[in-house]
Amino acid sequence: MDRFTERDQLIRKWIYAAAATIKESFDDELDIERKSNRNDLVTNMDKAIEKQFIEKIQHFFPGERILGEEGLGDEISLLDGVVWIIDPIDGTLNFVKQQDDFAIMIAIYEDGKGQLGYIYDVMQDKLYSARTGKGAYCNKRLLPTIEDRPLKEGLVAISSALMSKEEGLARTVGRASSGVRLIGSAGIETAHVASGRLIGYLAATLAPWDIAAGKIIAEEVGLIYTKLNGDKVDLLQKTPVLVASPTAHKEIIELLKSQKI
Amino acid sequence: MDRFTERDQLIRKWIYAAAATIKESFDDELDIERKSNRNDLVTNMDKAIEKQFIEKIQHFFPGERILGEEGLGDEISLLDGVVWIIDPIDGTLNFVKQQDDFAIMIAIYEDGKGQLGYIYDVMQDKLYSARTGKGAYCNKRLLPTIEDRPLKEGLVAISSALMSKEEGLARTVGRASSGVRLIGSAGIETAHVASGRLIGYLAATLAPWDIAAGKIIAEEVGLIYTKLNGDKVDLLQKTPVLVASPTAHKEIIELLKSQKI
Repeated sequence: MDRFTERDQLIRKWIYAAAATIKESFDDELDIERKSNRNDLVTNMDKAIEKQFIEKIQHFFPGERILGEEGLGDEISLLDGVVWIIDPIDGTLNFVKQQDDFAIMIAIYEDGKGQLGYIYDVMQDKLYSARTGKGAYCNKRLLPTIEDRPLKEGLVAISSALMSKEEGLARTVGRASSGVRLIGSAGIETAHVASGRLIGYLAATLAPWDIAAGKIIAEEVGLIYTKLNGDKVDLLQKTPVLVASPTAHKEIIELLKSQKI
Repeated sequence: MDRFTERDQLIRKWIYAAAATIKESFDDELDIERKSNRNDLVTNMDKAIEKQFIEKIQHFFPGERILGEEGLGDEISLLDGVVWIIDPIDGTLNFVKQQDDFAIMIAIYEDGKGQLGYIYDVMQDKLYSARTGKGAYCNKRLLPTIEDRPLKEGLVAISSALMSKEEGLARTVGRASSGVRLIGSAGIETAHVASGRLIGYLAATLAPWDIAAGKIIAEEVGLIYTKLNGDKVDLLQKTPVLVASPTAHKEIIELLKSQKI
């Protein structure tokens, strides 16, 4: 049993425990606090889950650094060594308004290279996971390598922010596809691309914790995960993201270039 | 037991039987035929389910007229007497591409007035139903009367067609809300407004079978269901639709008027 196997087993246990805490909370009132605007709600649950994860990581793996959405972890400016990247509740607005379509995400990077990625769609009880080089799974089912179809044959998810900001872009990419879908959780949208439900996902601005786990899972099934201009994503910065099957990825990049965005 | 109670019991049985047939089909290849364009896929399953419903209705209620998406029912130009309105698979594109997020819908109107409405979210096993004057349900849970919150406090679903056609509109309404969601099934989107997950739903063009069941369920929880300009919907024509809680409905109508759409 190598050190990643041990981490894998622990992470799964921690994720299911966190999900149980979250589900129990649905009977209580959520104490919602407003962060920068109303679309960026933070709940006490977000913070509590992140704190739980950090305490567990520090207990089992002292000294390893942690990057988390709620900022309870470390300040990180270099991805050397082992870094844990955590989003306790991805899709907070869905969590608050819908009590559905949100995810717990955890990833481990080592010297900047993805090793383990987890996206747990809590209400669907679907744990998408991948270990680099060993395939991606939905629960215990191995996800097949993605079918490389053209954009016009697939549904594409486009983030709400991107829809609002670049309406021409959304319209062009959407029209070239079978149709647009918008779930409101980068984790679930990326997982649906990885499982073949969607052909691609575009977002205006994703943070490291929105990207880390999904990128590992996506690349493991043969998807291309880049910035909207095709450049490599930088895991230490907020960045626009495009994940899609190879042919659709190329088509979307060309569509975006033709619009000079 | 009045005649609507008998119909209610039969309809539930028929819907669950149809759903079982659909789920079994996921092991087979779907024989997909293209209708007017690639976004309007018709599967053999659509037709088979509609045929099943029609045969059962004709057996139990001979002489009652049936309006169905696949056109296997009657030609209807007046809503007098009892009319059954059926959408065997709402969200065909989701059915084909995602094998999720599609619904079976059935409604009964009498002399133009809604009596019974059913939206079955097959993969979530959620049967939304209503009998006019007797409340709406999700499975056996009574749906409470909708909370009448302002648009800015809710998520709004906007159809893909409306997003593409009237990008300014989608942007304006979306920005005035907490965020945009796009599921791709009028039935499920309407059901999510009725259950309070979404504050409203806007669509560019809905057919009678997209509207019939949802309108009954929506009105039963206090939602306002109209055309995009606020006029009454006509159940015999394709029409743009807005369903929302009273305050949000008023706000959206005003936003649309200010854009002269």
